[in-house]
Amino acid sequence: MNHNILNKKIGILGGGQLGRMLYLAGANWNLDISVLDSANCPAAGLCKTFVEGDIKDYDNVLSFGRTVDVLTIEIEHVNIDALKQLELEGIIVFPRPEILEVIKDKNLQKQFYKDNEIASSKFRFYASQNDLLEDINNDKENNLNFPFVQKTCMGGYDGKGVVVIKNKDDLINLLDCECIVEEMVDIQKELAVIIARNESSEIKVYPTSEMEFDSKSNLVKLVFTPANIDSKTELECQKVALEIVNKLDYVGILAVELFLTKDGRILVNEIAPRTHNSGHHTIEGSATSQFEQQLKAILNLPLGSTEFRKHSAMVNLVGEEGYEGKVKVKGLEKCLELSEFHLHLYGKMTTKPNRKMGHATVLANSFDEMQQKVDTVIKGLKIISE
Amino acid sequence: MNHNILNKKIGILGGGQLGRMLYLAGANWNLDISVLDSANCPAAGLCKTFVEGDIKDYDNVLSFGRTVDVLTIEIEHVNIDALKQLELEGIIVFPRPEILEVIKDKNLQKQFYKDNEIASSKFRFYASQNDLLEDINNDKENNLNFPFVQKTCMGGYDGKGVVVIKNKDDLINLLDCECIVEEMVDIQKELAVIIARNESSEIKVYPTSEMEFDSKSNLVKLVFTPANIDSKTELECQKVALEIVNKLDYVGILAVELFLTKDGRILVNEIAPRTHNSGHHTIEGSATSQFEQQLKAILNLPLGSTEFRKHSAMVNLVGEEGYEGKVKVKGLEKCLELSEFHLHLYGKMTTKPNRKMGHATVLANSFDEMQQKVDTVIKGLKIISE
Repeated sequence: MNHNILNKKIGILGGGQLGRMLYLAGANWNLDISVLDSANCPAAGLCKTFVEGDIKDYDNVLSFGRTVDVLTIEIEHVNIDALKQLELEGIIVFPRPEILEVIKDKNLQKQFYKDNEIASSKFRFYASQNDLLEDINNDKENNLNFPFVQKTCMGGYDGKGVVVIKNKDDLINLLDCECIVEEMVDIQKELAVIIARNESSEIKVYPTSEMEFDSKSNLVKLVFTPANIDSKTELECQKVALEIVNKLDYVGILAVELFLTKDGRILVNEIAPRTHNSGHHTIEGSATSQFEQQLKAILNLPLGSTEFRKHSAMVNLVGEEGYEGKVKVKGLEKCLELSEFHLHLYGKMTTKPNRKMGHATVLANSFDEMQQKVDTVIKGLKIISE
Repeated sequence: MNHNILNKKIGILGGGQLGRMLYLAGANWNLDISVLDSANCPAAGLCKTFVEGDIKDYDNVLSFGRTVDVLTIEIEHVNIDALKQLELEGIIVFPRPEILEVIKDKNLQKQFYKDNEIASSKFRFYASQNDLLEDINNDKENNLNFPFVQKTCMGGYDGKGVVVIKNKDDLINLLDCECIVEEMVDIQKELAVIIARNESSEIKVYPTSEMEFDSKSNLVKLVFTPANIDSKTELECQKVALEIVNKLDYVGILAVELFLTKDGRILVNEIAPRTHNSGHHTIEGSATSQFEQQLKAILNLPLGSTEFRKHSAMVNLVGEEGYEGKVKVKGLEKCLELSEFHLHLYGKMTTKPNRKMGHATVLANSFDEMQQKVDTVIKGLKIISE
């Protein structure tokens, strides 16, 4: 093995909270990590080797990428053409640009599941809102049943770029873009699996997490691990995740969001080619954090154990309604009195309603104890402003 | 409670590995932390708010301290006069300068134990080497038995400033400085307790750790937790630590190094008013790392649980003999194959023999499993140079 592996220069495209936490994981190993993003992002205030630039811009990504040995991402919405050029020039880019291209386009992503017989909801692609409306009007066979979900092909994120169309009256809400339309799934639970694979094809899967959404903001409110599912379902989730990384010949961390339907089927909702909100609990709750695991994967080092230490729950801390400005944390003291309460603030300059400002993880010896701690955090901890 | 507590400006005197890890703990909470030290220290390459200066210099410490709300240290060898002035000006300084003054002078420290009836080895103070030699020559009553230990009053560190004088022939090795002379203790084990206390007098004690030293370099080779001692001894260790922080009205993290004598007594060896090498295992092995605990203590926040998650062992990674230059890590791959192997590299620019370059922590479900992992790390992992 190369004794210089830890001296490689690593670049991260994107300095949001994921890039920031990836950078922090690397700091333990004194890795030489640079981050590219706009000036006010969470990593900017922390990372000494921060580079200001636009991750969607060809020239910015190209010139940043040329300064590193290994390039990775914290978000898939980056300039893929530049990544392809960098690969040609010998820079190691993980996950590979061709895979990012498939994942960031929801149509190609769904087509990938279909081609590989990976269970996912039925869908159709439309090049525009007009095409979709035409189809609805001509739908003699009533294939396009209400309710359905419309998703923008490109750029959707955190519930944005997704609309649920329940009936003809909702059509006014349709997005005008390249899109897919998915059948509504009768969801019992929403689950997520974080999986890592390195270039030597070593794979480690984390135990499946269960997500609870805020009905108003459509954001993930709570993620807990292990999920409250039977072992057969757990195995099925892990199997799907394995199948995806192998079929993609994937290198890096991949988050697989799944539906458990009311009739007990596991369907892939979508995948994210990076660390993920549903894996934050691994920082304290697992033998290896998802961030350290990503670094191991892209450096082709042996992957870390994904054993969970305790029951863990991650609560997203979003900006409280009615507050905008410099961050203040209300109710911290009571939460700190809980054992195994772990706070993460992302360093965003200002809070605003429903903006993800940080998260809190609690660990517990039982599901019930975890639930009690979660209640204390959700009721007590508020992100307000000065 | 003040909702702005996390917005306070924090300063750390010293940017060695302890300052660096303290800074990293604060990054999770997005704390505004600045570090003062010389340009090439471990924190300098990481900390965006790094300030170059001399922590022993009155003016440097004063002007740095005036820029923060709360000031703390990673090492006791700082300018205490400046800290006193800063306190007068309303800056919060923890641990308090008066306590640092006692601890950094080994004579005052030993006197504190004596005055408070805290068991420690017998000692005498000498203003100079000459005074000591005179005493030896005049020692009719043979009170100053060989062998004994001579320690410099000020500035000793990591085995430096300590000599063992076995007989008259060794007198040539005597240090020429203000010193104390301690009787040799018949040591069964060397132990350490990390304890935290905040301004509200809340106290949390970590389980006692056991230290193993490298016979050649006199550096700590290995620290494991919990120590291999009976519960009565464990209790006694914790009791001594409690007594010390209460008697000192201490605020911050305190490391208490102890001797367990062959006849079963617990004696205080020395204390350090800061995070400590013997507490590094808490980063992964405990519910709360010693670094996060220090931040909680100095901000007067509720202290975190000190419950240990598993058996843990910390191996110091010192520069290999025969290598000097830019750091390379040999044998990493095999160690990474161990579950719960955690690497910390301190970001020192160059390695040299016996320089502390980092540490590795392993967690295990049993003492034996821990021992096996430690063997793999000690045999396999080497800090060499390019």
